[in-house]
Amino acid sequence: MIFLRNYYVNTTSKVDVLLITHDVKRAVRESGVQSGLITVLVPGGTAGIALLENDPKIHEDLKKWVETQVPADSGPRPNRRSGSGRNDAHIRAALIGVSVGIPLQDGKVMLGAWQEVVLYDFDDSKVARREITVQIMGEGPAK
Amino acid sequence: MIFLRNYYVNTTSKVDVLLITHDVKRAVRESGVQSGLITVLVPGGTAGIALLENDPKIHEDLKKWVETQVPADSGPRPNRRSGSGRNDAHIRAALIGVSVGIPLQDGKVMLGAWQEVVLYDFDDSKVARREITVQIMGEGPAK
Amino acid sequence: MIFLRNYYVNTTSKVDVLLITHDVKRAVRESGVQSGLITVLVPGGTAGIALLENDPKIHEDLKKWVETQVPADSGPRPNRRSGSGRNDAHIRAALIGVSVGIPLQDGKVMLGAWQEVVLYDFDDSKVARREITVQIMGEGPAK
Repeated sequence: MIFLRNYYVNTTSKVDVLLITHDVKRAVRESGVQSGLITVLVPGGTAGIALLENDPKIHEDLKKWVETQVPADSGPRPNRRSGSGRNDAHIRAALIGVSVGIPLQDGKVMLGAWQEVVLYDFDDSKVARREITVQIMGEGPAK
Repeated sequence: MIFLRNYYVNTTSKVDVLLITHDVKRAVRESGVQSGLITVLVPGGTAGIALLENDPKIHEDLKKWVETQVPADSGPRPNRRSGSGRNDAHIRAALIGVSVGIPLQDGKVMLGAWQEVVLYDFDDSKVARREITVQIMGEGPAK
Repeated sequence: MIFLRNYYVNTTSKVDVLLITHDVKRAVRESGVQSGLITVLVPGGTAGIALLENDPKIHEDLKKWVETQVPADSGPRPNRRSGSGRNDAHIRAALIGVSVGIPLQDGKVMLGAWQEVVLYDFDDSKVARREITVQIMGEGPAK
C-alpha cells in the first residue's frame, strides 16, 4: 500500500519553526498503513525538515546557529521565473535537509518520546503557504 | 516484508563515535529480507547517524568541527521531565541527521567499500544506553 | 517491485556540482515502478547529495560556504589501501548528506517545480568516475 498526501501550512514573513508531527500522524491514520516507512519531504527549496526535541530553547538556538553560520544575503534575489527566496534560505535548508524517513510499526510512528517532526521555514521574505509531502508505504492490518 | 528491531549500545560520558554497521547487517540477516530499503534512526535527540568512511582521523576531525562550530553550552539543561542533554548536543545531532536510508540488494547492504554506518553520540553529560531503530522493508528470497 | 541501478558520472579534479535528476528519472522509467520510494545514495565517501533549486548562484554560495566552514586540509591523505580523498571532503559530504529519499507517485518524481537532485563531489584531488546508486521500490501500474 502506498499513500501520498500534500499538506499546506501557513508561514509568516519571519523564519518559522512549525511542529508537523500531528500532520504526519494524521496522514498515517488516513493511509490505513500499519507498518512501513513514512517519508516527509518539503518540495520548496527554502525550508528544511528535522527530527528534533520540542523545546523552544533548542529551536531558538538552532535558528540562531543557522543565521550566524549562513548569514543573510544583503537583499532579495532578483525576480525570476524559477523559484524564489534568498540564497541563504536555500543553503540553510540544504544543511538541515529537506527529506526524512521515519519507520512505522503496528500503527506507531517510531520517533523518540520527545522527538518531533519540525519544519524550518527559512524564507523570511514573505507570508506563504508551504507545501509538505507525506508518503506512507507499507502493509495494512493483518487479515 | 517489514522487519523492525531496536538495538542498544552503551555510550560513555564523552562524545562517542560508534560503528554500528555490524548491527545493521545482523538485522538484515535476521529479517530474511533480500532486497529492499534499510532505515536507521536514533530515537534520542542527542545522537546523529552518518554514512562515513571508517578512518579515526575523519571521525576526530568531524568531532572537532562540530565542537568548534556548535560550542558547548555552559552547563547542563535544567532537569525537566521531557528529554535531556544539552542544547548543543541536540543541534549537533540535527546537523548530522538522525535518520538514514540504505538500499539492500540480493542480501548486500549497498554501502561503499569503506563506508560505515556511524553513530555520533553527542550527549557527554552521562553514561547511557543509546537506542537505535533498524527497519528493513522489502522482499524475501525468490521462491 | 524493487529496482536498483548504479550510474557513473565523470568528475573533474575540482569540486563538482552535477545535476543528476535526469539519471534518477531515467531509472524510474526503466524500473517500471509507478508509485513508491526513490533512494539515491553515493557509495563513495567524498560526495554528497542534496535536493536543491538549480540556480548556479546557490550552488556557488553553498560551495563557498562549505569551503569556508570546512577548510581544506593542507595536503592529500597518506596513500592507504582503504579509501581516498582528503578528510575535509569526507566531512563536507557528511554535512550535506549522502543518501536521500524521494517519493514517487503515479510516475511523477515528487520534487518541487525547481528542485533538483544535485551531486556535490568534494574530492578535488583527481579526475574520477563517481558511482551513484538509485533504488526504486514500490508498485507497478494497476492492472
